[in-house]
Amino acid sequence: MCPPVAERQVEGYPAPGTLDDVLGFELLEANGERCRARCAAERRVQQPMGLVHGGTYAALAEAMVSWATVAAVGPGGNFAVGQSNHTTFLRPVTSGHVNGEGTPRHRGRTTWVWDVEFTDDEGRLCAISRVTLAVRPAQAA
Amino acid sequence: MCPPVAERQVEGYPAPGTLDDVLGFELLEANGERCRARCAAERRVQQPMGLVHGGTYAALAEAMVSWATVAAVGPGGNFAVGQSNHTTFLRPVTSGHVNGEGTPRHRGRTTWVWDVEFTDDEGRLCAISRVTLAVRPAQAA
Amino acid sequence: MCPPVAERQVEGYPAPGTLDDVLGFELLEANGERCRARCAAERRVQQPMGLVHGGTYAALAEAMVSWATVAAVGPGGNFAVGQSNHTTFLRPVTSGHVNGEGTPRHRGRTTWVWDVEFTDDEGRLCAISRVTLAVRPAQAA
Amino acid sequence: MCPPVAERQVEGYPAPGTLDDVLGFELLEANGERCRARCAAERRVQQPMGLVHGGTYAALAEAMVSWATVAAVGPGGNFAVGQSNHTTFLRPVTSGHVNGEGTPRHRGRTTWVWDVEFTDDEGRLCAISRVTLAVRPAQAA
Repeated sequence: MCPPVAERQVEGYPAPGTLDDVLGFELLEANGERCRARCAAERRVQQPMGLVHGGTYAALAEAMVSWATVAAVGPGGNFAVGQSNHTTFLRPVTSGHVNGEGTPRHRGRTTWVWDVEFTDDEGRLCAISRVTLAVRPAQAA
Repeated sequence: MCPPVAERQVEGYPAPGTLDDVLGFELLEANGERCRARCAAERRVQQPMGLVHGGTYAALAEAMVSWATVAAVGPGGNFAVGQSNHTTFLRPVTSGHVNGEGTPRHRGRTTWVWDVEFTDDEGRLCAISRVTLAVRPAQAA
Repeated sequence: MCPPVAERQVEGYPAPGTLDDVLGFELLEANGERCRARCAAERRVQQPMGLVHGGTYAALAEAMVSWATVAAVGPGGNFAVGQSNHTTFLRPVTSGHVNGEGTPRHRGRTTWVWDVEFTDDEGRLCAISRVTLAVRPAQAA
Repeated sequence: MCPPVAERQVEGYPAPGTLDDVLGFELLEANGERCRARCAAERRVQQPMGLVHGGTYAALAEAMVSWATVAAVGPGGNFAVGQSNHTTFLRPVTSGHVNGEGTPRHRGRTTWVWDVEFTDDEGRLCAISRVTLAVRPAQAA
Protein backbone atom coordinates (compact mmCIF):
# COMPACT_ATOMS: atom_id res chain seq x y z
CA MET A 1 0.00 0.00 0.00
CA CYS A 2 2.82 2.35 0.87
CA PRO A 3 4.37 3.56 -2.38
CA PRO A 4 8.08 2.70 -2.59
CA VAL A 5 10.38 5.44 -1.33
CA ALA A 6 11.94 5.93 -4.73
CA GLU A 7 8.61 6.69 -6.46
CA ARG A 8 8.74 9.97 -8.34
CA GLN A 9 6.34 12.74 -7.61
CA VAL A 10 4.32 14.60 -10.20
CA GLU A 11 6.49 17.34 -11.70
CA GLY A 12 5.94 20.82 -10.35
CA TYR A 13 4.12 19.59 -7.28
CA PRO A 14 3.77 21.02 -4.71
CA ALA A 15 3.89 24.75 -5.32
CA PRO A 16 6.39 26.03 -2.72
CA GLY A 17 4.87 27.53 0.39
CA THR A 18 1.30 26.45 -0.36
CA LEU A 19 -0.79 24.23 1.91
CA ASP A 20 0.25 21.06 0.09
CA ASP A 21 3.90 21.92 0.64
CA VAL A 22 3.48 22.98 4.27
CA LEU A 23 1.66 19.75 5.14
CA GLY A 24 4.09 17.50 3.28
CA PHE A 25 1.71 16.15 0.68
CA GLU A 26 3.22 13.97 -2.05
CA LEU A 27 1.45 13.61 -5.40
CA LEU A 28 2.39 10.37 -7.12
CA GLU A 29 0.08 10.28 -10.08
CA ALA A 30 -2.50 12.69 -11.44
CA ASN A 31 -4.39 12.23 -14.68
CA GLY A 32 -7.93 11.85 -15.91
CA GLU A 33 -8.02 8.13 -15.16
CA ARG A 34 -6.58 8.06 -11.67
CA CYS A 35 -4.70 9.97 -9.03
CA ARG A 36 -2.58 8.87 -6.10
CA ALA A 37 -1.10 10.86 -3.28
CA ARG A 38 0.07 10.40 0.28
CA CYS A 39 1.38 12.14 3.33
CA ALA A 40 3.30 11.02 6.38
CA ALA A 41 1.26 10.92 9.59
CA GLU A 42 3.47 13.52 11.21
CA ARG A 43 2.50 16.05 13.85
CA ARG A 44 1.94 18.76 11.24
CA VAL A 45 -1.05 16.84 9.86
CA GLN A 46 -2.42 15.76 13.25
CA GLN A 47 -4.93 17.10 15.71
CA PRO A 48 -3.96 17.45 19.39
CA MET A 49 -4.59 13.79 20.33
CA GLY A 50 -2.07 12.50 17.80
CA LEU A 51 -4.61 11.34 15.23
CA VAL A 52 -4.40 12.47 11.63
CA HIS A 53 -6.62 15.57 11.43
CA GLY A 54 -9.91 15.16 9.60
CA GLY A 55 -8.96 18.19 7.56
CA THR A 56 -5.88 16.39 6.29
CA TYR A 57 -7.94 13.80 4.43
CA ALA A 58 -10.24 16.48 3.02
CA ALA A 59 -7.33 18.67 1.95
CA LEU A 60 -5.38 15.82 0.41
CA ALA A 61 -8.45 14.62 -1.50
CA GLU A 62 -9.15 18.15 -2.72
CA ALA A 63 -5.57 18.66 -3.83
CA MET A 64 -5.09 15.41 -5.69
CA VAL A 65 -8.34 15.43 -7.64
CA SER A 66 -7.99 19.12 -8.49
CA TRP A 67 -4.52 18.53 -9.84
CA ALA A 68 -5.71 15.49 -11.80
CA THR A 69 -8.76 17.21 -13.24
CA VAL A 70 -6.81 20.28 -14.30
CA ALA A 71 -4.26 17.98 -15.95
CA ALA A 72 -7.07 16.33 -17.87
CA VAL A 73 -9.22 19.28 -18.91
CA GLY A 74 -6.52 21.94 -19.24
CA PRO A 75 -5.29 20.91 -22.69
CA GLY A 76 -8.86 21.41 -23.95
CA GLY A 77 -8.88 25.00 -22.71
CA ASN A 78 -10.78 24.35 -19.52
CA PHE A 79 -10.22 24.91 -15.86
CA ALA A 80 -11.50 23.10 -12.78
CA VAL A 81 -12.51 24.48 -9.41
CA GLY A 82 -13.68 22.60 -6.32
CA GLN A 83 -17.40 22.73 -5.64
CA SER A 84 -18.02 20.21 -2.87
CA ASN A 85 -15.93 17.90 -0.70
CA HIS A 86 -17.61 15.27 1.45
CA THR A 87 -15.18 13.27 3.54
CA THR A 88 -16.21 10.41 5.82
CA PHE A 89 -13.84 9.29 8.58
CA LEU A 90 -13.75 5.55 9.21
CA ARG A 91 -10.65 4.68 11.18
CA PRO A 92 -7.98 6.80 12.89
CA VAL A 93 -4.39 6.86 11.65
CA THR A 94 -1.61 7.70 14.09
CA SER A 95 1.57 6.63 12.30
CA GLY A 96 2.96 5.64 8.91
CA HIS A 97 1.25 7.28 5.95
CA VAL A 98 -2.15 8.24 4.71
CA ASN A 99 -2.30 6.85 1.19
CA GLY A 100 -4.95 8.19 -1.15
CA GLU A 101 -6.18 6.82 -4.43
CA GLY A 102 -8.77 8.66 -6.52
CA THR A 103 -11.08 7.31 -9.20
CA PRO A 104 -13.27 9.51 -11.42
CA ARG A 105 -16.95 8.62 -11.20
CA HIS A 106 -18.18 11.22 -13.63
CA ARG A 107 -16.30 13.23 -16.23
CA GLY A 108 -18.90 15.56 -17.67
CA ARG A 109 -18.63 18.68 -19.72
CA THR A 110 -19.31 20.95 -16.74
CA THR A 111 -18.80 18.69 -13.72
CA TRP A 112 -16.36 16.02 -12.60
CA VAL A 113 -16.95 13.75 -9.58
CA TRP A 114 -14.17 11.77 -7.92
CA ASP A 115 -14.10 9.15 -5.19
CA VAL A 116 -10.96 8.98 -3.08
CA GLU A 117 -10.06 6.14 -0.74
CA PHE A 118 -7.53 6.60 2.01
CA THR A 119 -5.71 3.65 3.50
CA ASP A 120 -3.04 3.28 6.14
CA ASP A 121 0.22 1.45 5.48
CA GLU A 122 -1.51 -1.83 6.34
CA GLY A 123 -4.04 -1.22 3.59
CA ARG A 124 -6.97 -0.61 5.95
CA LEU A 125 -9.59 1.85 4.72
CA CYS A 126 -9.42 4.96 6.93
CA ALA A 127 -11.45 7.63 5.14
CA ILE A 128 -13.34 8.19 1.91
CA SER A 129 -13.98 11.43 0.05
CA ARG A 130 -16.43 12.33 -2.67
CA VAL A 131 -15.34 15.49 -4.43
CA THR A 132 -17.21 17.46 -7.09
CA LEU A 133 -15.45 19.99 -9.32
CA ALA A 134 -16.90 22.48 -11.73
CA VAL A 135 -15.26 22.57 -15.14
CA ARG A 136 -15.30 25.91 -16.91
CA PRO A 137 -13.66 27.50 -19.96
CA ALA A 138 -10.22 28.76 -18.88
CA GLN A 139 -10.85 32.29 -20.11
CA ALA A 140 -13.83 32.54 -17.73
CA ALA A 141 -11.68 31.64 -14.71
CA MET B 1 -17.10 40.28 10.22
CA CYS B 2 -13.40 40.28 10.87
CA PRO B 3 -12.84 39.77 14.60
CA PRO B 4 -10.88 42.63 16.10
CA VAL B 5 -7.15 42.02 16.26
CA ALA B 6 -7.08 42.14 20.02
CA GLU B 7 -9.63 39.34 20.44
CA ARG B 8 -8.31 36.60 22.70
CA GLN B 9 -7.99 33.07 21.48
CA VAL B 10 -9.32 30.02 23.29
CA GLU B 11 -6.79 28.98 25.90
CA GLY B 12 -4.52 26.11 24.98
CA TYR B 13 -5.25 26.41 21.30
CA PRO B 14 -3.58 25.48 19.05
CA ALA B 15 -1.51 22.53 20.20
CA PRO B 16 2.03 23.40 19.06
CA GLY B 17 3.18 21.76 15.86
CA THR B 18 -0.22 20.36 14.91
CA LEU B 19 -2.06 21.18 11.69
CA ASP B 20 -4.01 24.02 13.30
CA ASP B 21 -0.77 25.62 14.41
CA VAL B 22 1.06 25.07 11.13
CA LEU B 23 -1.77 26.63 9.13
CA GLY B 24 -2.22 29.59 11.47
CA PHE B 25 -5.73 28.84 12.64
CA GLU B 26 -7.13 31.07 15.40
CA LEU B 27 -9.91 29.79 17.65
CA LEU B 28 -11.92 32.66 19.09
CA GLU B 29 -14.79 30.90 20.82
CA ALA B 30 -15.66 27.25 21.34
CA ASN B 31 -18.55 26.01 23.41
CA GLY B 32 -21.72 24.00 23.02
CA GLU B 33 -23.71 26.99 21.77
CA ARG B 34 -21.35 28.40 19.21
CA CYS B 35 -17.82 28.43 17.87
CA ARG B 36 -15.83 30.98 15.93
CA ALA B 37 -12.45 30.73 14.29
CA ARG B 38 -10.49 32.32 11.49
CA CYS B 39 -7.28 32.18 9.54
CA ALA B 40 -5.39 34.66 7.42
CA ALA B 41 -5.55 33.96 3.68
CA GLU B 42 -1.80 33.50 3.50
CA ARG B 43 0.13 31.32 1.09
CA ARG B 44 0.31 28.48 3.62
CA VAL B 45 -3.46 27.98 3.36
CA GLN B 46 -3.66 28.49 -0.42
CA GLN B 47 -3.57 26.29 -3.48
CA PRO B 48 -1.18 27.14 -6.33
CA MET B 49 -3.44 29.76 -7.96
CA GLY B 50 -3.53 31.91 -4.85
CA LEU B 51 -7.03 30.93 -3.74
CA VAL B 52 -7.67 29.65 -0.25
CA HIS B 53 -7.40 25.86 -0.53
CA GLY B 54 -10.66 23.93 -0.27
CA GLY B 55 -9.02 21.82 2.40
CA THR B 56 -8.50 24.91 4.53
CA TYR B 57 -12.23 25.43 4.98
CA ALA B 58 -12.78 21.74 5.70
CA ALA B 59 -9.89 21.61 8.19
CA LEU B 60 -10.90 24.80 9.96
CA ALA B 61 -14.51 23.61 10.24
CA GLU B 62 -13.37 20.25 11.56
CA ALA B 63 -11.05 21.83 14.10
CA MET B 64 -13.44 24.41 15.50
CA VAL B 65 -16.46 22.15 15.92
CA SER B 66 -14.36 19.33 17.37
CA TRP B 67 -12.88 21.68 19.94
CA ALA B 68 -16.32 23.09 20.76
CA THR B 69 -17.97 19.69 21.06
CA VAL B 70 -15.22 18.29 23.26
CA ALA B 71 -15.53 21.39 25.45
CA ALA B 72 -19.25 20.72 25.79
CA VAL B 73 -19.38 16.96 26.28
CA GLY B 74 -16.04 16.45 28.05
CA PRO B 75 -17.23 17.49 31.52
CA GLY B 76 -19.90 14.77 31.26
CA GLY B 77 -17.24 12.12 30.69
CA ASN B 78 -17.64 11.94 26.94
CA PHE B 79 -15.41 12.38 23.95
CA ALA B 80 -16.11 13.47 20.39
CA VAL B 81 -14.61 12.27 17.15
CA GLY B 82 -15.26 13.48 13.61
CA GLN B 83 -17.47 11.27 11.48
CA SER B 84 -18.28 13.27 8.37
CA ASN B 85 -17.35 16.67 6.94
CA HIS B 86 -19.19 18.02 3.93
CA THR B 87 -17.87 21.35 2.75
CA THR B 88 -19.38 23.32 -0.15
CA PHE B 89 -17.31 26.04 -1.83
CA LEU B 90 -19.24 29.11 -2.90
CA ARG B 91 -16.83 31.95 -3.54
CA PRO B 92 -13.03 32.14 -3.68
CA VAL B 93 -11.02 34.05 -1.08
CA THR B 94 -7.62 35.43 -2.02
CA SER B 95 -6.81 37.92 0.74
CA GLY B 96 -7.83 39.04 4.21
CA HIS B 97 -9.24 36.29 6.42
CA VAL B 98 -11.48 33.32 6.27
CA ASN B 99 -13.87 33.81 9.19
CA GLY B 100 -15.85 30.82 10.41
CA GLU B 101 -18.85 30.66 12.67
CA GLY B 102 -20.37 27.37 13.76
CA THR B 103 -23.87 26.65 15.03
CA PRO B 104 -24.96 23.29 16.45
CA ARG B 105 -27.92 21.80 14.62
CA HIS B 106 -28.20 18.65 16.70
CA ARG B 107 -26.75 17.84 20.09
CA GLY B 108 -27.74 14.24 20.66
CA ARG B 109 -26.52 11.65 23.09
CA THR B 110 -24.39 9.89 20.45
CA THR B 111 -24.17 12.40 17.61
CA TRP B 112 -23.65 16.15 17.19
CA VAL B 113 -24.18 18.00 13.92
CA TRP B 114 -22.78 21.48 13.26
CA ASP B 115 -23.20 23.98 10.45
CA VAL B 116 -20.28 26.29 9.81
CA GLU B 117 -20.43 29.40 7.66
CA PHE B 118 -17.28 30.98 6.27
CA THR B 119 -17.21 34.61 5.25
CA ASP B 120 -14.50 36.88 3.90
CA ASP B 121 -13.65 40.20 5.56
CA GLU B 122 -16.46 41.87 3.60
CA GLY B 123 -18.95 39.47 5.11
CA ARG B 124 -19.63 37.55 1.90
CA LEU B 125 -20.43 33.87 2.30
CA CYS B 126 -17.55 31.85 0.84
CA ALA B 127 -18.06 28.26 2.01
CA ILE B 128 -20.35 26.22 4.23
CA SER B 129 -19.59 23.02 6.10
CA ARG B 130 -21.85 20.45 7.69
CA VAL B 131 -19.92 18.36 10.18
CA THR B 132 -21.10 15.30 12.10
CA LEU B 133 -19.27 14.06 15.19
CA ALA B 134 -19.77 10.86 17.13
CA VAL B 135 -19.97 11.29 20.90
CA ARG B 136 -18.72 8.38 22.96
CA PRO B 137 -17.88 7.69 26.60
CA ALA B 138 -14.32 8.93 27.19
CA GLN B 139 -13.12 5.60 28.51
CA ALA B 140 -14.05 3.97 25.19
CA ALA B 141 -11.95 6.41 23.18
CA MET C 1 -45.26 25.17 12.62
CA CYS C 2 -48.04 23.27 10.90
CA PRO C 3 -49.37 25.47 8.09
CA PRO C 4 -53.09 26.15 8.47
CA VAL C 5 -55.30 23.74 6.56
CA ALA C 6 -56.68 26.49 4.38
CA GLU C 7 -53.24 27.56 3.09
CA ARG C 8 -53.14 27.57 -0.68
CA GLN C 9 -50.71 25.43 -2.56
CA VAL C 10 -48.48 26.66 -5.34
CA GLU C 11 -50.47 26.62 -8.57
CA GLY C 12 -49.89 23.68 -10.88
CA TYR C 13 -48.30 21.60 -8.16
CA PRO C 14 -48.07 18.65 -8.06
CA ALA C 15 -48.03 17.31 -11.60
CA PRO C 16 -50.61 14.49 -11.52
CA GLY C 17 -49.23 10.99 -11.16
CA THR C 18 -45.68 12.06 -10.41
CA LEU C 19 -43.79 11.17 -7.22
CA ASP C 20 -44.82 14.38 -5.47
CA ASP C 21 -48.45 13.60 -6.14
CA VAL C 22 -48.21 9.92 -5.20
CA LEU C 23 -46.56 10.74 -1.87
CA GLY C 24 -48.96 13.56 -1.02
CA PHE C 25 -46.47 16.42 -1.03
CA GLU C 26 -47.89 19.91 -0.61
CA LEU C 27 -45.96 22.93 -1.90
CA LEU C 28 -46.91 26.08 -0.02
CA GLU C 29 -44.43 28.61 -1.30
CA ALA C 30 -41.69 28.47 -3.92
CA ASN C 31 -39.63 31.42 -5.04
CA GLY C 32 -36.04 32.54 -5.13
CA GLU C 33 -36.12 33.81 -1.54
CA ARG C 34 -37.75 30.89 0.19
CA CYS C 35 -39.71 27.70 -0.22
CA ARG C 36 -42.04 25.80 2.07
CA ALA C 37 -43.63 22.40 1.70
CA ARG C 38 -45.00 19.62 3.83
CA CYS C 39 -46.42 16.14 3.78
CA ALA C 40 -48.57 14.15 6.17
CA ALA C 41 -46.70 11.37 7.99
CA GLU C 42 -48.92 8.70 6.44
CA ARG C 43 -48.02 5.14 5.66
CA ARG C 44 -47.22 6.01 2.05
CA VAL C 45 -44.22 8.07 3.16
CA GLN C 46 -43.08 5.65 5.89
CA GLN C 47 -40.68 2.76 6.13
CA PRO C 48 -41.85 -0.55 7.61
CA MET C 49 -41.39 0.46 11.27
CA GLY C 50 -43.79 3.39 10.97
CA LEU C 51 -41.16 6.11 10.82
CA VAL C 52 -41.12 8.64 8.02
CA HIS C 53 -38.80 7.17 5.38
CA GLY C 54 -35.42 8.85 5.01
CA GLY C 55 -36.15 9.11 1.31
CA THR C 56 -39.22 11.20 2.04
CA TYR C 57 -37.14 14.04 3.45
CA ALA C 58 -34.68 13.84 0.57
CA ALA C 59 -37.45 13.75 -2.03
CA LEU C 60 -39.40 16.58 -0.47
CA ALA C 61 -36.26 18.73 -0.23
CA GLU C 62 -35.38 17.97 -3.83
CA ALA C 63 -38.88 18.77 -5.04
CA MET C 64 -39.34 22.04 -3.21
CA VAL C 65 -36.00 23.60 -4.01
CA SER C 66 -36.16 22.49 -7.64
CA TRP C 67 -39.57 24.07 -8.04
CA ALA C 68 -38.38 27.25 -6.31
CA THR C 69 -35.20 27.52 -8.36
CA VAL C 70 -36.96 26.95 -11.64
CA ALA C 71 -39.50 29.60 -10.64
CA ALA C 72 -36.64 32.02 -10.02
CA VAL C 73 -34.33 31.34 -12.97
CA GLY C 74 -36.92 30.37 -15.57
CA PRO C 75 -37.99 33.90 -16.49
CA GLY C 76 -34.34 34.62 -17.34
CA GLY C 77 -34.29 31.75 -19.84
CA ASN C 78 -32.57 29.26 -17.56
CA PHE C 79 -33.32 25.84 -16.22
CA ALA C 80 -32.28 24.05 -13.04
CA VAL C 81 -31.43 20.41 -12.46
CA GLY C 82 -30.49 18.64 -9.23
CA GLN C 83 -26.82 17.89 -8.76
CA SER C 84 -26.44 16.76 -5.16
CA ASN C 85 -28.74 16.13 -2.19
CA HIS C 86 -27.27 15.56 1.25
CA THR C 87 -29.89 14.85 3.88
CA THR C 88 -29.08 14.29 7.56
CA PHE C 89 -31.63 12.57 9.79
CA LEU C 90 -31.88 13.93 13.31
CA ARG C 91 -35.12 12.76 14.88
CA PRO C 92 -37.82 10.32 13.77
CA VAL C 93 -41.32 11.47 12.87
CA THR C 94 -44.22 9.04 13.20
CA SER C 95 -47.31 11.22 13.03
CA GLY C 96 -48.54 14.70 12.09
CA HIS C 97 -46.61 16.35 9.29
CA VAL C 98 -43.12 16.82 8.04
CA ASN C 99 -42.81 20.56 7.48
CA GLY C 100 -40.00 21.80 5.29
CA GLU C 101 -38.60 25.28 4.88
CA GLY C 102 -35.85 26.06 2.41
CA THR C 103 -33.43 28.98 2.35
CA PRO C 104 -31.06 29.72 -0.54
CA ARG C 105 -27.41 29.83 0.54
CA HIS C 106 -25.96 30.57 -2.85
CA ARG C 107 -27.62 31.87 -6.00
CA GLY C 108 -24.87 31.84 -8.58
CA ARG C 109 -24.92 32.03 -12.31
CA THR C 110 -24.35 28.30 -12.73
CA THR C 111 -25.10 26.85 -9.29
CA TRP C 112 -27.69 27.31 -6.55
CA VAL C 113 -27.34 25.85 -3.06
CA TRP C 114 -30.29 25.51 -0.67
CA ASP C 115 -30.59 24.50 2.96
CA VAL C 116 -33.84 22.86 3.99
CA GLU C 117 -34.97 22.33 7.56
CA PHE C 118 -37.64 19.80 8.41
CA THR C 119 -39.64 20.08 11.60
CA ASP C 120 -42.47 18.07 13.08
CA ASP C 121 -45.75 19.68 14.14
CA GLU C 122 -44.18 20.55 17.51
CA GLY C 123 -41.47 22.51 15.74
CA ARG C 124 -38.66 20.09 16.57
CA LEU C 125 -35.90 19.82 13.99
CA CYS C 126 -36.09 16.33 12.41
CA ALA C 127 -33.89 16.45 9.32
CA ILE C 128 -31.79 18.90 7.32
CA SER C 129 -30.93 18.82 3.64
CA ARG C 130 -28.31 20.64 1.64
CA VAL C 131 -29.19 20.58 -2.04
CA THR C 132 -27.10 21.81 -4.98
CA LEU C 133 -28.65 22.50 -8.37
CA ALA C 134 -26.99 23.27 -11.65
CA VAL C 135 -28.43 26.23 -13.55
CA ARG C 136 -28.16 26.06 -17.32
CA PRO C 137 -29.59 27.93 -20.32
CA ALA C 138 -33.03 26.46 -21.04
CA GLN C 139 -32.20 25.69 -24.66
CA ALA C 140 -29.35 23.43 -23.49
CA ALA C 141 -31.68 21.38 -21.27
CA MET D 1 -27.58 -4.66 -16.05
CA CYS D 2 -31.32 -5.16 -15.87
CA PRO D 3 -32.01 -8.11 -13.57
CA PRO D 4 -33.94 -10.85 -15.36
CA VAL D 5 -37.70 -10.66 -14.95
CA ALA D 6 -37.87 -13.96 -13.12
CA GLU D 7 -35.49 -12.83 -10.36
CA ARG D 8 -37.03 -13.31 -6.93
CA GLN D 9 -37.42 -10.44 -4.55
CA VAL D 10 -36.30 -10.49 -0.94
CA GLU D 11 -39.01 -12.12 1.15
CA GLY D 12 -41.31 -9.80 3.03
CA TYR D 13 -40.37 -6.79 0.93
CA PRO D 14 -41.94 -4.33 0.51
CA ALA D 15 -44.18 -3.76 3.52
CA PRO D 16 -47.61 -3.09 1.99
CA GLY D 17 -48.62 0.53 1.70
CA THR D 18 -45.22 1.95 2.63
CA LEU D 19 -43.17 4.25 0.42
CA ASP D 20 -41.23 1.36 -1.11
CA ASP D 21 -44.47 -0.32 -2.12
CA VAL D 22 -46.13 2.85 -3.40
CA LEU D 23 -43.14 3.69 -5.60
CA GLY D 24 -42.73 0.15 -6.94
CA PHE D 25 -39.31 -0.58 -5.49
CA GLU D 26 -38.00 -4.13 -5.93
CA LEU D 27 -35.39 -5.50 -3.54
CA LEU D 28 -33.38 -8.26 -5.16
CA GLU D 29 -30.68 -8.96 -2.62
CA ALA D 30 -29.97 -7.58 0.84
CA ASN D 31 -27.24 -8.83 3.12
CA GLY D 32 -24.12 -7.59 4.85
CA GLU D 33 -21.97 -8.09 1.76
CA ARG D 34 -24.13 -6.52 -0.89
CA CYS D 35 -27.56 -5.26 -1.80
CA ARG D 36 -29.35 -4.83 -5.10
CA ALA D 37 -32.65 -3.17 -5.89
CA ARG D 38 -34.39 -1.50 -8.80
CA CYS D 39 -37.48 0.36 -9.85
CA ALA D 40 -39.17 0.99 -13.16
CA ALA D 41 -38.82 4.57 -14.45
CA GLU D 42 -42.58 5.07 -14.35
CA ARG D 43 -44.44 8.31 -13.81
CA ARG D 44 -44.85 7.58 -10.10
CA VAL D 45 -41.08 7.94 -9.57
CA GLN D 46 -40.65 10.92 -11.90
CA GLN D 47 -40.66 14.68 -11.57
CA PRO D 48 -42.82 16.79 -13.87
CA MET D 49 -40.39 16.80 -16.82
CA GLY D 50 -40.41 13.02 -17.09
CA LEU D 51 -37.03 12.44 -15.48
CA VAL D 52 -36.62 10.06 -12.58
CA HIS D 53 -37.00 12.24 -9.46
CA GLY D 54 -33.82 12.88 -7.49
CA GLY D 55 -35.69 11.71 -4.42
CA THR D 56 -36.22 8.32 -6.04
CA TYR D 57 -32.51 7.55 -6.04
CA ALA D 58 -32.13 8.77 -2.47
CA ALA D 59 -35.15 6.80 -1.27
CA LEU D 60 -34.14 3.62 -3.07
CA ALA D 61 -30.61 3.86 -1.68
CA GLU D 62 -31.93 4.46 1.81
CA ALA D 63 -34.35 1.55 1.58
CA MET D 64 -31.94 -1.03 0.23
CA VAL D 65 -29.03 -0.36 2.54
CA SER D 66 -31.30 -0.11 5.58
CA TRP D 67 -32.85 -3.46 4.78
CA ALA D 68 -29.41 -4.99 4.18
CA THR D 69 -27.90 -3.58 7.35
CA VAL D 70 -30.81 -4.69 9.50
CA ALA D 71 -30.53 -8.15 7.95
CA ALA D 72 -26.85 -8.23 8.91
CA VAL D 73 -26.88 -6.74 12.41
CA GLY D 74 -30.32 -7.90 13.56
CA PRO D 75 -29.30 -11.47 14.48
CA GLY D 76 -26.72 -9.96 16.84
CA GLY D 77 -29.42 -8.02 18.68
CA ASN D 78 -28.82 -4.72 16.96
CA PHE D 79 -30.86 -2.30 14.95
CA ALA D 80 -29.92 0.21 12.25
CA VAL D 81 -31.28 3.66 11.57
CA GLY D 82 -30.38 6.07 8.78
CA GLN D 83 -28.12 8.95 9.74
CA SER D 84 -27.07 10.59 6.49
CA ASN D 85 -27.81 10.14 2.79
CA HIS D 86 -25.73 11.98 0.22
CA THR D 87 -26.88 11.35 -3.32
CA THR D 88 -25.15 12.80 -6.39
CA PHE D 89 -27.03 12.94 -9.70
CA LEU D 90 -24.95 12.24 -12.78
CA ARG D 91 -27.23 11.44 -15.69
CA PRO D 92 -31.00 11.59 -16.15
CA VAL D 93 -33.08 8.45 -16.60
CA THR D 94 -36.39 8.66 -18.47
CA SER D 95 -37.26 5.05 -19.27
CA GLY D 96 -36.40 1.46 -18.42
CA HIS D 97 -35.22 0.89 -14.85
CA VAL D 98 -33.06 2.46 -12.23
CA ASN D 99 -30.83 -0.38 -11.04
CA GLY D 100 -29.05 0.01 -7.73
CA GLU D 101 -26.17 -1.96 -6.29
CA GLY D 102 -24.83 -1.27 -2.82
CA THR D 103 -21.43 -2.11 -1.35
CA PRO D 104 -20.54 -1.66 2.33
CA ARG D 105 -17.53 0.57 2.85
CA HIS D 106 -17.47 0.38 6.61
CA ARG D 107 -19.12 -2.10 8.96
CA GLY D 108 -18.32 -0.80 12.40
CA ARG D 109 -19.76 -1.53 15.78
CA THR D 110 -21.78 1.70 15.86
CA THR D 111 -21.75 2.87 12.23
CA TRP D 112 -22.13 1.36 8.79
CA VAL D 113 -21.34 3.22 5.56
CA TRP D 114 -22.59 2.06 2.14
CA ASP D 115 -21.93 3.21 -1.39
CA VAL D 116 -24.73 2.68 -3.89
CA GLU D 117 -24.35 2.95 -7.64
CA PHE D 118 -27.36 3.46 -9.87
CA THR D 119 -27.26 2.51 -13.54
CA ASP D 120 -29.81 2.61 -16.32
CA ASP D 121 -30.64 -0.48 -18.39
CA GLU D 122 -27.67 0.26 -20.68
CA GLY D 123 -25.35 0.11 -17.68
CA ARG D 124 -24.55 3.82 -17.61
CA LEU D 125 -23.90 5.31 -14.19
CA CYS D 126 -26.76 7.70 -13.35
CA ALA D 127 -26.44 8.47 -9.65
CA ILE D 128 -24.34 7.53 -6.63
CA SER D 129 -25.30 7.56 -2.96
CA ARG D 130 -23.24 7.42 0.19
CA VAL D 131 -25.38 6.40 3.12
CA THR D 132 -24.40 6.25 6.79
CA LEU D 133 -26.43 4.27 9.32
CA ALA D 134 -26.17 4.21 13.08
CA VAL D 135 -26.15 0.74 14.61
CA ARG D 136 -27.63 0.49 18.10
CA PRO D 137 -28.69 -2.28 20.49
CA ALA D 138 -32.24 -3.30 19.51
CA GLN D 139 -33.58 -2.73 23.02
CA ALA D 140 -32.54 0.92 22.79
CA ALA D 141 -34.50 1.47 19.57
